[in-house]
Amino acid sequence: MKIAIDAMGGDNAPEAVVKGSLLAVKEYEELEITLYGDENQIKPFMNESHERISIVHTDEKIESTDEPVRAVRRKKNASMVLMAEAVKEGQADACISAGNTGALMSAGLFKVGRIKGIERPALSPTLPTVDGGGFLFLDVGANVDAKPNHLLQYGIMGSIYAKKIRGIDQPRVGLLNVGTEEQKGSELTKKAFELLQQADLNFIGNVEARDLLDGVADVVVTDGFSGNVVLKTVEGTASTLFSMVKEVFMTNTKTKIAAAMVKTDLKGLKDRLDYSEYGGAGLFGLAAPVIKAHGSSNDRAIFNAIRQTRQLVEEQVIDAITQEVKEMQTEEGSNE
Amino acid sequence: MKIAIDAMGGDNAPEAVVKGSLLAVKEYEELEITLYGDENQIKPFMNESHERISIVHTDEKIESTDEPVRAVRRKKNASMVLMAEAVKEGQADACISAGNTGALMSAGLFKVGRIKGIERPALSPTLPTVDGGGFLFLDVGANVDAKPNHLLQYGIMGSIYAKKIRGIDQPRVGLLNVGTEEQKGSELTKKAFELLQQADLNFIGNVEARDLLDGVADVVVTDGFSGNVVLKTVEGTASTLFSMVKEVFMTNTKTKIAAAMVKTDLKGLKDRLDYSEYGGAGLFGLAAPVIKAHGSSNDRAIFNAIRQTRQLVEEQVIDAITQEVKEMQTEEGSNE
Repeated sequence: MKIAIDAMGGDNAPEAVVKGSLLAVKEYEELEITLYGDENQIKPFMNESHERISIVHTDEKIESTDEPVRAVRRKKNASMVLMAEAVKEGQADACISAGNTGALMSAGLFKVGRIKGIERPALSPTLPTVDGGGFLFLDVGANVDAKPNHLLQYGIMGSIYAKKIRGIDQPRVGLLNVGTEEQKGSELTKKAFELLQQADLNFIGNVEARDLLDGVADVVVTDGFSGNVVLKTVEGTASTLFSMVKEVFMTNTKTKIAAAMVKTDLKGLKDRLDYSEYGGAGLFGLAAPVIKAHGSSNDRAIFNAIRQTRQLVEEQVIDAITQEVKEMQTEEGSNE
Repeated sequence: MKIAIDAMGGDNAPEAVVKGSLLAVKEYEELEITLYGDENQIKPFMNESHERISIVHTDEKIESTDEPVRAVRRKKNASMVLMAEAVKEGQADACISAGNTGALMSAGLFKVGRIKGIERPALSPTLPTVDGGGFLFLDVGANVDAKPNHLLQYGIMGSIYAKKIRGIDQPRVGLLNVGTEEQKGSELTKKAFELLQQADLNFIGNVEARDLLDGVADVVVTDGFSGNVVLKTVEGTASTLFSMVKEVFMTNTKTKIAAAMVKTDLKGLKDRLDYSEYGGAGLFGLAAPVIKAHGSSNDRAIFNAIRQTRQLVEEQVIDAITQEVKEMQTEEGSNE
């Protein structure tokens, strides 16, 4: 199995990317990785050169501040662009970047392309839940003006992912809404509700944002705008609360002693909520696995993204989605 | 000043409503309150009868599970409906309920009516921020399919509220979006951005959900769907985190001792995030102040909602909004 990785993407690139890749080839014997990026910056972290890691040198890279579509069009030799082209040309089975999310979506669309029948790809991270299982959340921003049929396709893709990768027999698919009753919501969610209900899915109906982290569903679908604000609200609220708890612990000598006594346990709690542990965010709907690792990924997060990508290839998730969409279209055709 | 209150709304009704009302008439000498609801259930909590609190008896009430529009139409003698009618007929200056949110919106629209020129009222709570100031967030669900012009009107109403009630000279108005750059977002936010930029507001541009609790703006506008999911995501994330922290503290003897040492300080933190401290959620855009107190309101939260409502009447916020909307329409007319 061959995975192409953008060595220059993310806040800790290339160090975290190289180290995460080294961890992965040690763990998985059949894995071959190609790193795209500046050889002079990559090599210092390759103190142990590895026969299953190769480097494709390029000076160019896409910055996090670059305008996505323009950057992908103009920076033809950017590490991210070359990485996506490697997938397009069959030199790699999948690719990973921790760089500019919008640019990765553009590179994915332009280079790797969509699965036939999928109208819009979805950016799909796994968010943490209290029980540690997590839930797949799509879309968190690839498609901010979603149509009902897009949400149906997210449900189908998410369900296949949860079956194949998480081994859930009948994944519970929920529709994010402003209430749990069937008739609740916007024009979009009302129509999407009908489509999801008619589909061959374990659709559990509307779910509310306050129940997400409790694990109310295995797969939650929503439009890219709402998904993005939910994701950032979880991040913002958690980070604000942790800062406030920290502040409380620094109040006086007594609280400082208390802090020392629970430090390890609280650290464990923070790790449980760390979604880089769940891998990266898949760009589901593209013709090959394209994975966005978190921008602040450390080597462990990169390793987890590689582990997840490897599983997507091994379990042939893209083939399963392609097949399912094809069958749906045949059915629709025969119904007409 | 006369305020009409639905004594039967909310999880702790009528006890919390009656006790909160007693607190308020003690604090504000010019305040007169009429409680609508079941006299037999209300009176036991009125051990000190008060000359400035009167009761209008009714057996009927709207349940939290009732379908809003139908309930308001059919339950003509429901405490909430009678309360709204009192405002309509000039018997009260404003009204408050902790009951069914949808029904209160319907009662507000049908009975109290909109301000001329306001297309859609917005449900507008104040959410907590780290510095304790809070920000006004609108809309959180009155209007899930919002148009650009609705968001502009939210900005105008919110700005007037922040000036009059919070005494902020130039309230910072932000548009909730998936990124801070001007060109980001959905069709709705792109158009709303233009309108807000042209308006006579201190518009600070797009704001991201992760920065809300840090107090990035004084007023944040968004469509009712996104606003509702943000509100519930904050609630859900905070509640999940507090449960997890509690669990950590119960791990063993050492953590239990630590918990005892920081208990008071952590309680203070929770209070800082308690948005019932900021009053209820206004239904801005109606022809009189209609306030939704939180469903789980205790007497303190009811008192805060009354305090806020009283301020809305005293500062003539509705008149100021009416005037502003009128002027905008005159300007539009003269531009044509």
